[in-house]
Amino acid sequence: MSTALVILAAGMGTRMNSDLPKVLHEIAGAPMLAHAMLSGLSQEPSRVIVVAGHGAEAVTAAAEEVTPFAQIVLQEAQNGTAHAVDQARAALADFDGDVLVLYGDTPFVRPETLEAMKAARARHDVVVLGFEAADPGRYGRLVMDGQHLDRIVEFKDASEEERRINLCNSGLVCANAELLFDLISAVGDNNASGEYYLTDIVGLARDRGLSAGAVTCDEAETMGINSRAELARAEAAYQARARETALEDGVTLLAPQTVHFAYDTVIGRDSVVEPNVVFGPGVTVESGARIRAFSHLEGCHVSRGGLIGPYARLRPGAELAEDVHIGNFVEVKAARIDRAAKINHLTYIGDAEVGQETNIGAGTITCNYDGVFKHVTRIGARAFIGSSSILVAPVSIGDEAMTAAGSVITRDVEPGALALARPRQETKPGMARKLMEMLRLKKARKAETE
Amino acid sequence: MSTALVILAAGMGTRMNSDLPKVLHEIAGAPMLAHAMLSGLSQEPSRVIVVAGHGAEAVTAAAEEVTPFAQIVLQEAQNGTAHAVDQARAALADFDGDVLVLYGDTPFVRPETLEAMKAARARHDVVVLGFEAADPGRYGRLVMDGQHLDRIVEFKDASEEERRINLCNSGLVCANAELLFDLISAVGDNNASGEYYLTDIVGLARDRGLSAGAVTCDEAETMGINSRAELARAEAAYQARARETALEDGVTLLAPQTVHFAYDTVIGRDSVVEPNVVFGPGVTVESGARIRAFSHLEGCHVSRGGLIGPYARLRPGAELAEDVHIGNFVEVKAARIDRAAKINHLTYIGDAEVGQETNIGAGTITCNYDGVFKHVTRIGARAFIGSSSILVAPVSIGDEAMTAAGSVITRDVEPGALALARPRQETKPGMARKLMEMLRLKKARKAETE
Amino acid sequence: MSTALVILAAGMGTRMNSDLPKVLHEIAGAPMLAHAMLSGLSQEPSRVIVVAGHGAEAVTAAAEEVTPFAQIVLQEAQNGTAHAVDQARAALADFDGDVLVLYGDTPFVRPETLEAMKAARARHDVVVLGFEAADPGRYGRLVMDGQHLDRIVEFKDASEEERRINLCNSGLVCANAELLFDLISAVGDNNASGEYYLTDIVGLARDRGLSAGAVTCDEAETMGINSRAELARAEAAYQARARETALEDGVTLLAPQTVHFAYDTVIGRDSVVEPNVVFGPGVTVESGARIRAFSHLEGCHVSRGGLIGPYARLRPGAELAEDVHIGNFVEVKAARIDRAAKINHLTYIGDAEVGQETNIGAGTITCNYDGVFKHVTRIGARAFIGSSSILVAPVSIGDEAMTAAGSVITRDVEPGALALARPRQETKPGMARKLMEMLRLKKARKAETE
Repeated sequence: MSTALVILAAGMGTRMNSDLPKVLHEIAGAPMLAHAMLSGLSQEPSRVIVVAGHGAEAVTAAAEEVTPFAQIVLQEAQNGTAHAVDQARAALADFDGDVLVLYGDTPFVRPETLEAMKAARARHDVVVLGFEAADPGRYGRLVMDGQHLDRIVEFKDASEEERRINLCNSGLVCANAELLFDLISAVGDNNASGEYYLTDIVGLARDRGLSAGAVTCDEAETMGINSRAELARAEAAYQARARETALEDGVTLLAPQTVHFAYDTVIGRDSVVEPNVVFGPGVTVESGARIRAFSHLEGCHVSRGGLIGPYARLRPGAELAEDVHIGNFVEVKAARIDRAAKINHLTYIGDAEVGQETNIGAGTITCNYDGVFKHVTRIGARAFIGSSSILVAPVSIGDEAMTAAGSVITRDVEPGALALARPRQETKPGMARKLMEMLRLKKARKAETE
Repeated sequence: MSTALVILAAGMGTRMNSDLPKVLHEIAGAPMLAHAMLSGLSQEPSRVIVVAGHGAEAVTAAAEEVTPFAQIVLQEAQNGTAHAVDQARAALADFDGDVLVLYGDTPFVRPETLEAMKAARARHDVVVLGFEAADPGRYGRLVMDGQHLDRIVEFKDASEEERRINLCNSGLVCANAELLFDLISAVGDNNASGEYYLTDIVGLARDRGLSAGAVTCDEAETMGINSRAELARAEAAYQARARETALEDGVTLLAPQTVHFAYDTVIGRDSVVEPNVVFGPGVTVESGARIRAFSHLEGCHVSRGGLIGPYARLRPGAELAEDVHIGNFVEVKAARIDRAAKINHLTYIGDAEVGQETNIGAGTITCNYDGVFKHVTRIGARAFIGSSSILVAPVSIGDEAMTAAGSVITRDVEPGALALARPRQETKPGMARKLMEMLRLKKARKAETE
Repeated sequence: MSTALVILAAGMGTRMNSDLPKVLHEIAGAPMLAHAMLSGLSQEPSRVIVVAGHGAEAVTAAAEEVTPFAQIVLQEAQNGTAHAVDQARAALADFDGDVLVLYGDTPFVRPETLEAMKAARARHDVVVLGFEAADPGRYGRLVMDGQHLDRIVEFKDASEEERRINLCNSGLVCANAELLFDLISAVGDNNASGEYYLTDIVGLARDRGLSAGAVTCDEAETMGINSRAELARAEAAYQARARETALEDGVTLLAPQTVHFAYDTVIGRDSVVEPNVVFGPGVTVESGARIRAFSHLEGCHVSRGGLIGPYARLRPGAELAEDVHIGNFVEVKAARIDRAAKINHLTYIGDAEVGQETNIGAGTITCNYDGVFKHVTRIGARAFIGSSSILVAPVSIGDEAMTAAGSVITRDVEPGALALARPRQETKPGMARKLMEMLRLKKARKAETE
């Protein structure tokens, strides 16, 4: 049975107090919409429909970044969840399979849970995802009748007895496309909010003698996000899980609470991560590397035996081979650093290649930008770049070549050669003392005249 | 009715284990005394009396920094709170209004609470601030008689029944000046500690047939600080509130627990603050800015669209216009950076002006200090400062001018001009290999002889 | 009575999911084995035997680093704790005193507790360390008979009544060497695991009419570590205690949770540590210093009045005298910095001496490494090192000497002299504008042809 995802992502999220559409607020470096979509994509759907509304343009861009196959439909006015799903009707007119309705602001539903919902379709015409709430509060309640879901009651319409039910409604639904849109056509807006509620399809299905059922998941999966405080709590929940997983995978986190992962961070066994490390998206770290305190990594690869930081900043395109050392106050961007190369202090390496066992001295800068173009710096193997070398790209330094400390290198250096570009040192005896005396006198006079 | 503040700030704070007077220990970047005073100043008092004792000189300086109108009186010996307030008698001899007695080590009382105390003076001659304690422990208890405060009993003098009272004494008092000092004159030291307690004025007032009343506040407001552990808890409580407020104001904090605010930090809606950011005093950030991880800001202004960090240090006097980018390992001090200028890597900009859309290359240093004087660097608009440029102030670089990478710029550069100051590059073929061989030989010989 | 330590450190620690032997995983910068050994060494033992197995070579090295007197014995197969202790039999053949059996994965037992165990030997032949467990779970139980320990029952062999006992077995044991090995000889492996359990010696001793007793300690002391999650919790527990101790000692920690101590960190009274500071091993900070945010210190000394950071990295051998200032993005390694010297921005000082009151400008680099040897830079007192000076070691700068900003200094500078090494500045009017136009044209053409 083929599957279509319909992901509701049109809401404004008033309580976020933000110009950014709610579903684009990020968790672990990815919009919450992307989390919801990635979970849905695990079901290998043949269609992916995103219902956008507020900030539709930005939502579209974000959805397409997750998968180019995402199809965006617009919900001009926000008239309730049934109305939102209804916007996908035309796009799914020719689709004959199951529809999974997901929510862009409910990012944590696990693939296993969606799998269970699809499987439950063998037993029920309409499948709803519920969860046992620790504090059911004002959630809608799932009223069960044995294995069957009898109806969903909104909290405000629930009797005292119904309010004692702990099984709550997540909003996620799975049903055959034709049936789903058929039921939606019958949903009315005769309620306090004057909106069309997707939950009404359960009662409508039962009225037709069809079967509805519920699948349950952990409450943490259905955590919805409506304010920045809730966003922060969702981020914290995500990070707590990621830290736990890393520890189980054999990564040492000296202070887990201070390590921040992205949604796609991969770290190998027996790597050590010191306190205060931030992983942005796109980072892989092989086994046995050490990421020292205060490091910041994004879009980069660290190989086995790498020693990174403290205070290392690896930016997108930093590809580090085995046993590379990157030290403090060093930035590496779009650069391949070969085996056992060392870049230990106060250096900027951008748009570059650095050969194996090469040593880059403190204070080295690759000048990769001329104001319009970016240029490449190539440094060979076993080269020695003297401290405070300034490498004006495009430029190549050969294998086993050297640059003298403080040199501005503008022309290629052949293998084994030594390049120098620095002025002769002059020394003026007594001049420092004279200068200082003069300056102090000037200061004294200035103080007098003031 | 005019108001006078009397702020008790004489205590040594033995349990702080510190040479610094207790009230000068800081919370969120300001001495706790300043927090107490600022709360009191919200009542627009006509007099502000600070009772100093231990470290009076430093306390005086801190009080005067909060308001130049602060009047300091000395309490030579610490003989109890009534004795402390009594030191303000002479200074308030000509004052005919209400006195609010505050404490320099009780920094969190809200203006609304002080307002309520003043309002309660319409009903009572003496008003005491109480709080419902979760665990009343050894606090003094407020014994009420209907709407009237009958007396305050110290824990050690309290009966079993009185100890079951949860309403505790904060120590804050409001009364007419003349009455207050009159009552204080009657306070005795006939108690275990041999001290004069301000709390005794309640009983004395009742004995005279006057009315005493209590106003209550949240326990968190009356948190007193007596040790560094309590100071750390007070700081944590302050930060928790500040983070919550920021989230409510529409600021995204990716990891709220890792962001540290100062007492006066202002951050605009839809700004994003990444993990591990420290705000010192005097920072304003406009809407829609992003403060990246590991940044440290003090006394600076970031405008709309600013992108700061990671690892940016903005120091006092850094004024950043719209869309300015400040990148990693960059320090900016006393500098105005104009619209859309970029300073992205390993740079120090001090005592400077940078024009709009100007790009400052990696490793640039403004040499602003000659050992005695600080000098200014002026850079125009759309200029291009090559990487590792050294700008020896005073110096000006015109609009659309350029400096070549690695140049030491000591003289002004006119608009549109290119300045170079770097030596010719020499290359010595084979020399690097020879040098390395020599060094390795030397090392081998050295190893042999050792 | 002389004491021998037998420290069991042979286990693989399967649940650690690591190639590193379990006891070498670190807490607060030292292997957990070192913590256990250091606690034992407080008893001034005349022998220290470490029973190694998995990763014996690395364990040996770690043990010898704690004390060169450590004697390593190998346990080839892991046949239980009695078997492990038995490996020390030959090494202790000539030893006539008490043996304390400790565990390399139980790092937190306090010296006072070991002292109490030794003292209890006056009353009992065999002394076992127990603890009152909040949740006894599956721990072995100590079954007492008045002041006597009757036996230790494993959880799985315990009756319902025995399972209600909260006094649990830590595994630590103290007994006379001869008796201990005699009892161990009698231990059998007739149990579910087929292993020789040290706990069996209690029953065997009682069977012989000998006396066994228990000493109890806080449960936190006996915390064993079997997984990385437990390691992280142990680290957190250690840090919590260290932070509390620092606060009690009169150190201000603005955000205690964000400060990470090593096992041997020493910080003086009235020092202030800002948020996000990491102390590696070997750091001492005198009274009244301030360690600013984001600083990282290892193997260094900061004297009274030091002002360090933010973003300062002090590496091993950094010795700072009174009132030294080290600012942002500054790395100091193997260098003695004299009184009131200032190194405030973007600088690397390695293998150096800096005299008192000397000022080192922003962007200064000591070039201490020639690819093979490290060389020393010596800077005198009251010298002024201009910004972006490059000091090529070995080199000396005299007292009150100066280097001009941007100079590459390769030869010694005598006291009071000014050294310059920078090229003349050339300026080419209009050239910057022309260059930019050219580049933009080129870009436009490139865009066309693509």
